[in-house]
Amino acid sequence: MVKNSLGRDIPETWCGRALEPYEDPFSRLPDLDRAPRRLKRHNPGDKKLLGSLREAIEAVGLKDGMTIATHHHLRNGDALLNQVVSEIDAMGIRDIGIASSSIHPVHAALIPFIKKGTITRFECGVNGLIAELVSKGQLKCPITVRSHGGRARSLVDGEVRVDVAFIAAPCCDPLGNMNGTEGPSACGSLGYAFTDAEYAHAVVAVTDNLVPYPAMPTSIPQHLVDFVVQVETLGDPSKIVSTTTRITRDPAGLQIARYAADVIDAAGLIKDGFSFQTGAGGTSLAVADNIKQKMAEKGVKGSFGCGGITGYFVEMLEQGFFRSLLDVQCFDLAAVASIGRNTAHQEISANLYANPFNRGAVVNQLDCVILGATEVDVDFNVNVNTESTGYLLHNTGGHCDTAAGAKLSVIVAPALRGRLPIVRERVTTVTTPGDTIDVIVTERGIAVNPRRPGLAEQLRAARLPVVDIHALHAEVCGITGTPRDVEFEDEIVALIEYRDGTIIDTVRRVAR
Amino acid sequence: MVKNSLGRDIPETWCGRALEPYEDPFSRLPDLDRAPRRLKRHNPGDKKLLGSLREAIEAVGLKDGMTIATHHHLRNGDALLNQVVSEIDAMGIRDIGIASSSIHPVHAALIPFIKKGTITRFECGVNGLIAELVSKGQLKCPITVRSHGGRARSLVDGEVRVDVAFIAAPCCDPLGNMNGTEGPSACGSLGYAFTDAEYAHAVVAVTDNLVPYPAMPTSIPQHLVDFVVQVETLGDPSKIVSTTTRITRDPAGLQIARYAADVIDAAGLIKDGFSFQTGAGGTSLAVADNIKQKMAEKGVKGSFGCGGITGYFVEMLEQGFFRSLLDVQCFDLAAVASIGRNTAHQEISANLYANPFNRGAVVNQLDCVILGATEVDVDFNVNVNTESTGYLLHNTGGHCDTAAGAKLSVIVAPALRGRLPIVRERVTTVTTPGDTIDVIVTERGIAVNPRRPGLAEQLRAARLPVVDIHALHAEVCGITGTPRDVEFEDEIVALIEYRDGTIIDTVRRVAR
Repeated sequence: MVKNSLGRDIPETWCGRALEPYEDPFSRLPDLDRAPRRLKRHNPGDKKLLGSLREAIEAVGLKDGMTIATHHHLRNGDALLNQVVSEIDAMGIRDIGIASSSIHPVHAALIPFIKKGTITRFECGVNGLIAELVSKGQLKCPITVRSHGGRARSLVDGEVRVDVAFIAAPCCDPLGNMNGTEGPSACGSLGYAFTDAEYAHAVVAVTDNLVPYPAMPTSIPQHLVDFVVQVETLGDPSKIVSTTTRITRDPAGLQIARYAADVIDAAGLIKDGFSFQTGAGGTSLAVADNIKQKMAEKGVKGSFGCGGITGYFVEMLEQGFFRSLLDVQCFDLAAVASIGRNTAHQEISANLYANPFNRGAVVNQLDCVILGATEVDVDFNVNVNTESTGYLLHNTGGHCDTAAGAKLSVIVAPALRGRLPIVRERVTTVTTPGDTIDVIVTERGIAVNPRRPGLAEQLRAARLPVVDIHALHAEVCGITGTPRDVEFEDEIVALIEYRDGTIIDTVRRVAR
Repeated sequence: MVKNSLGRDIPETWCGRALEPYEDPFSRLPDLDRAPRRLKRHNPGDKKLLGSLREAIEAVGLKDGMTIATHHHLRNGDALLNQVVSEIDAMGIRDIGIASSSIHPVHAALIPFIKKGTITRFECGVNGLIAELVSKGQLKCPITVRSHGGRARSLVDGEVRVDVAFIAAPCCDPLGNMNGTEGPSACGSLGYAFTDAEYAHAVVAVTDNLVPYPAMPTSIPQHLVDFVVQVETLGDPSKIVSTTTRITRDPAGLQIARYAADVIDAAGLIKDGFSFQTGAGGTSLAVADNIKQKMAEKGVKGSFGCGGITGYFVEMLEQGFFRSLLDVQCFDLAAVASIGRNTAHQEISANLYANPFNRGAVVNQLDCVILGATEVDVDFNVNVNTESTGYLLHNTGGHCDTAAGAKLSVIVAPALRGRLPIVRERVTTVTTPGDTIDVIVTERGIAVNPRRPGLAEQLRAARLPVVDIHALHAEVCGITGTPRDVEFEDEIVALIEYRDGTIIDTVRRVAR
């Protein structure tokens, strides 16, 4: 066991993998080639269209011990991963790893297959019940949580080998040209699937909307795809939307949003060329709304909005507040409709979006990102993975990627939720290191990272309520009392991998 | 020296490379991984924009013996390759190979740099004076001629290592996102440059139209690009067009075009979903015009037109004769304008277009391709590389790629040009093997490859003048006399590489 630079205990190995402890956000350099992929030949007349998922699993030669992947653009509406695993199980294949871009509550259907050893590990973040059961020790299935950029990096640098990617293709032709914009399961951007298409050793396009050759427009082209399978349904796109994609009505949330917009303004970022990312949460959207008003007042035209895209950003594009949207994932159906309609609403891969090990990711060009938090601490570290119960329940998403990339990374979070303090001495789990967080905006004041003294000056000059993070912490504890630490066992059930492949934290089994 | 399956003498090695003789069009399988590429890291604030080509050449570490590449979408209007080589020469770097997608007459400006040893080899086809001088032995500079698909394959399978690609980017932002559709040097598709962007060990985007981030739309994205350089001009797009992009007025040409269209019709291909490629030559366009009339009469809607795209194909798209255009290269300014305007006019990479070693190239989906010829022979082999003088003067382009891919490959050529017989006993140089040619259409009759007896039946049933290729050859020789063979020395000055990397023929120095 060694301590990483944030003081978190990291084992030297875990589940057979040698671990490198997290050091700092920017200095780890790749000293290797991109991961290999076998060349294949395809001659005229060779067919790719197979009759069933089973035929495809046979054709790609999936074997015990291999790793598969899917993408999560249909989010909680995804039907494919459950279908694939069910078929794998029926074929008697065991010890399969899952390296999808994300796992959602709908995939709790996999629990029986985990229990019987069909699925034995997740090389990706897991939202929901599976993660909770793993945290409780009620399900044995090691989880390595990766950010969106970290996942792309792990495929590109070969840390994770995906043997077979099953790509849900809402529109696909018999040769495997596909897009996400048309068909009953349209999900918009296929951003996460691009890296799979380029790096998985076999690629199966699965569609419920087989169209004549060539599918138009083509997002992922045929020359990367081994086989094509038609299924009844890929899922339910109405479940792409979570309930959080509306502007908050909570007074504290609205106050936080006003402060956050003022912070961005005071930092001098709201000018022509402004680039911005925010999530789909109610407070984040309220920030966007305030920013839009400021942009309108100043007559500012932004360069791009990026990340998961909502209808709110589409409106800003169509109203001229942004020149373009760079979309790795559509967060609602308005975004899905836009990406097929607006040429300036461009699909980007997760590699292009956020991989730290390439010739330049989009997140590095962000002026500002607005991010949420489950907990923050006096070192500005942020936790979005575990709840106050200690249970692993959430993915990292693009949190640590955009925090590292943006000129200004702003956490918006209430200082406390009910009796629960959000500002802590030490977060339960580090998702995103404090070195990459500039400002924490709460309804009780704005804490500026001491790394940014100039920024604190700017905020004070704008008469914003700048508070010392320690004072804010003390104030919160004065109200809620100092929370009792969650008790954990020694057993590590999950790794929190930083985007560069080092281990920033672990998740331990919660004591009964 | 060994004979390949077409009876051509192939040395065991040439210029230090072990050669594999051509066997047949479809059976060589890749037994290797795609070529490696070094990973890099790019952090926020890292800049790519450099002040000059010289700075970029220094930054990428170009050294004696390395290989560079450019793309040829500006064709004879390209100014970049000459600028780059001039700068390399001024820096004292020597023994550089050129692996561009094509060399045009404008690049005769490189001759002094070849003479002094700055440039020592071409890993690509060469059009014009340089090739002629090499054929005459007046310039020492070995040439390996590759087709468009073969070039993509050679980068993907590592046969050719491009150390630095200089990509002419008509529209580019400071991070290297680029497209070919906007700016004073707009050339439309950047199809040939995609493989360079993915496989060259360093990529320099060179632009005369630097735009604010992000360039929209993006064809080649920033995460593949190392550096960006601004120059005065990339060249003159008016020279994209050669003089041959109009429908022929020559009566023999028009007769050939009518026959060719009748052949395609008789073969039963003109039905919904029809896919088609033709070149920009006068006879090829006349075929397209006849095909269009037949499609109109039958009310047929085609699936795609592909290859080098002309305004003629754009019209067919916009008039509804094709559902889409798959464009690796724009052959005129009407095509350049269309690709920025029509979403169904889609840019494709040379890899996707024609590489035999991937999971399926577009050429494999072609119903029919119309191709020209300098010579054809009684075995249906075709020569487009050397002239009757024996001089190497032309590139292969997509000739052998589309012939191998299309269901029906049709050569349109006059049986004789003046006193020059086009139908020969044996072509001077094999560009495209007879195994992949179905029909040769001349003004004196239509020769069908004996491999396609059913097709000959169909043509006879349609009362088309089917002739035996030997009879046609005898008829032509009766008019022109049997031509004297060109006399060659033993010295090999160029290889004609088939798309799969085997050697289909060599070009020898012409005797004085």
